[in-house]
Amino acid sequence: MKVTRDEALALSMGLLEGRDTPAKCALLQSDILVEAELRGHPSHGLQRLPRLLTRIERGLTDPRTEGMASWRSDAALEVDGMNGLGPVIAFAALRHLETRVATSGVALAAIRNSNHLGMLACYVEQIASWGCIGIAMSSSEALVHPHGGTRAMLGTNPIAIAVPTAERPMVLDLATSTVSMGKIHHYAANGMPLPSGWARDAAGRPTSSAAAAKQGSIAPFGGAKGYGLGLAVELVVAALAGSELAPNVRGTLDAEFVCNKGDVLIAIHLGHAPDLAAKLSAYLELIRRSPPADPEQPVSIPGDGAALRRAIALEQGFEIEPQLWRDLHALSRTSVFEGHSA
Amino acid sequence: MKVTRDEALALSMGLLEGRDTPAKCALLQSDILVEAELRGHPSHGLQRLPRLLTRIERGLTDPRTEGMASWRSDAALEVDGMNGLGPVIAFAALRHLETRVATSGVALAAIRNSNHLGMLACYVEQIASWGCIGIAMSSSEALVHPHGGTRAMLGTNPIAIAVPTAERPMVLDLATSTVSMGKIHHYAANGMPLPSGWARDAAGRPTSSAAAAKQGSIAPFGGAKGYGLGLAVELVVAALAGSELAPNVRGTLDAEFVCNKGDVLIAIHLGHAPDLAAKLSAYLELIRRSPPADPEQPVSIPGDGAALRRAIALEQGFEIEPQLWRDLHALSRTSVFEGHSA
Repeated sequence: MKVTRDEALALSMGLLEGRDTPAKCALLQSDILVEAELRGHPSHGLQRLPRLLTRIERGLTDPRTEGMASWRSDAALEVDGMNGLGPVIAFAALRHLETRVATSGVALAAIRNSNHLGMLACYVEQIASWGCIGIAMSSSEALVHPHGGTRAMLGTNPIAIAVPTAERPMVLDLATSTVSMGKIHHYAANGMPLPSGWARDAAGRPTSSAAAAKQGSIAPFGGAKGYGLGLAVELVVAALAGSELAPNVRGTLDAEFVCNKGDVLIAIHLGHAPDLAAKLSAYLELIRRSPPADPEQPVSIPGDGAALRRAIALEQGFEIEPQLWRDLHALSRTSVFEGHSA
Repeated sequence: MKVTRDEALALSMGLLEGRDTPAKCALLQSDILVEAELRGHPSHGLQRLPRLLTRIERGLTDPRTEGMASWRSDAALEVDGMNGLGPVIAFAALRHLETRVATSGVALAAIRNSNHLGMLACYVEQIASWGCIGIAMSSSEALVHPHGGTRAMLGTNPIAIAVPTAERPMVLDLATSTVSMGKIHHYAANGMPLPSGWARDAAGRPTSSAAAAKQGSIAPFGGAKGYGLGLAVELVVAALAGSELAPNVRGTLDAEFVCNKGDVLIAIHLGHAPDLAAKLSAYLELIRRSPPADPEQPVSIPGDGAALRRAIALEQGFEIEPQLWRDLHALSRTSVFEGHSA
């Protein structure tokens, strides 16, 4: 079924406000979830909302706090998220960075004790809107095996990078795993076999069974290089945020534990080269117009697909599983303590 | 044939000093080249020296300058390399960063008009030796086609990241292409066919001919994700350094043009989490000891292989092509103007 952005936002905000979330915080959280839907990434969309509501009801997530931020050096902000909503904590950190980066040229926020940020693209786009390069990284539960390994040891450790141009920024947002665990669940739910090389089972054997993979591990993307990048994200985030490493991370996929992963946001002012923004745009356009391998599939720039899907979804609404939409409506009719007791 | 680090350093320094390079600069440049040999990356080793000497002789590279550095904001250093030797310019920038990062927490240098830096691992290791995370990125000539594209539009755009631990730092150093153009040349020289998916010919067709690939383009690593990362490096470097974008880059692979690519070096102070370094080391050890896919191939951490090869090469010397070694010796007997006239 199709729903509009406004319908989805209203429903999500109502559910959050019904659980003691201030309107401003409910909007930030809802907007991040709905943005993922608009861009065609339902794994980071409204399917995460029921669990988040349970987390709030159980006191694992504090929907009111903006966390505590302090500059531990001139350009490095330390943020204790105090179990707050991911987007609320992260956007509060960004407000600090925006002011500081104007004079420092580069500034970062290292966030611990915050809940799941959702799609990182939104944060780096915000930084790009100031005319800065934005970089975001998050750690997560151990789901990914090392290159040459068989056991889940790393998070899916996404990294996002936005670079402003004269037009839309280039926005890269990738998990360092071959696929998301969300996609594995989707294959499992639909009884579809996994392509070779995606996953291993709990015993560490390669598997094409999505059900077995759910108990096992996902491959890093791009072999040794992708593994290396994922491990670098893992270490950088833990080293800067003081958050847990993957084997000890909890709380982004469950409603049982406080969330102890970390996030790092970096803003870097552009240089002053003449006509820089126009030059970057012209280069991206040159790439888009370069000869494709498949004449039906023009070469694209990271973020092009998401921007197109978003534009269409704003016009026409986006597809959502009817059962999820019904479940969300049902949650708005239950009281906190009937619906989700701990 | 095998040569020792000392023999290689002495020969390289002699060649550079014979072409008006101050001893200090000759040592920095020679050390970077020899380090690549010690670690088993001859593509970044002494085979680059003859071309570099020609560049100096032709006035394309100034072996004496340290460039001009100025802080364009509190934590962002702008460096005009003034056609200096890559390692000389970059290590001068690192000295500025080391002082600044102690108070800023994060600091970066954006370098334009410098020659090839060589293996980026060495720079991020230097940053890690201060107890900081090091990140380095460089742009280069257009050699890599976009994911879904057929024409060389991006550089091989390497990125290196080092994270200090209680033991050796984790050191990631990767080109964002499937293979280096150096490896393609190696396959061509030995008449070996390229594995499928590595390269395209000048007309944009997939090819297993290394000779054809030399005129064509290399694939990005890791499909769309690796392409996105390479493109992000391309844009970040150009946007911060004001350097050229890949289609206009010259001077890292030729002895005809001044070098107009860019480099970015970032230093970030670690957080103050208790026992952080020990925790990171323990995690890396846990990964190394996790069950491997192939019992003969234990899981490794980025930098492990290079460190092992380096230790052995320091003991036993390293392999070098006899012809290259003879060529280098021959260069030390020619005067500047006899050997390489422009």
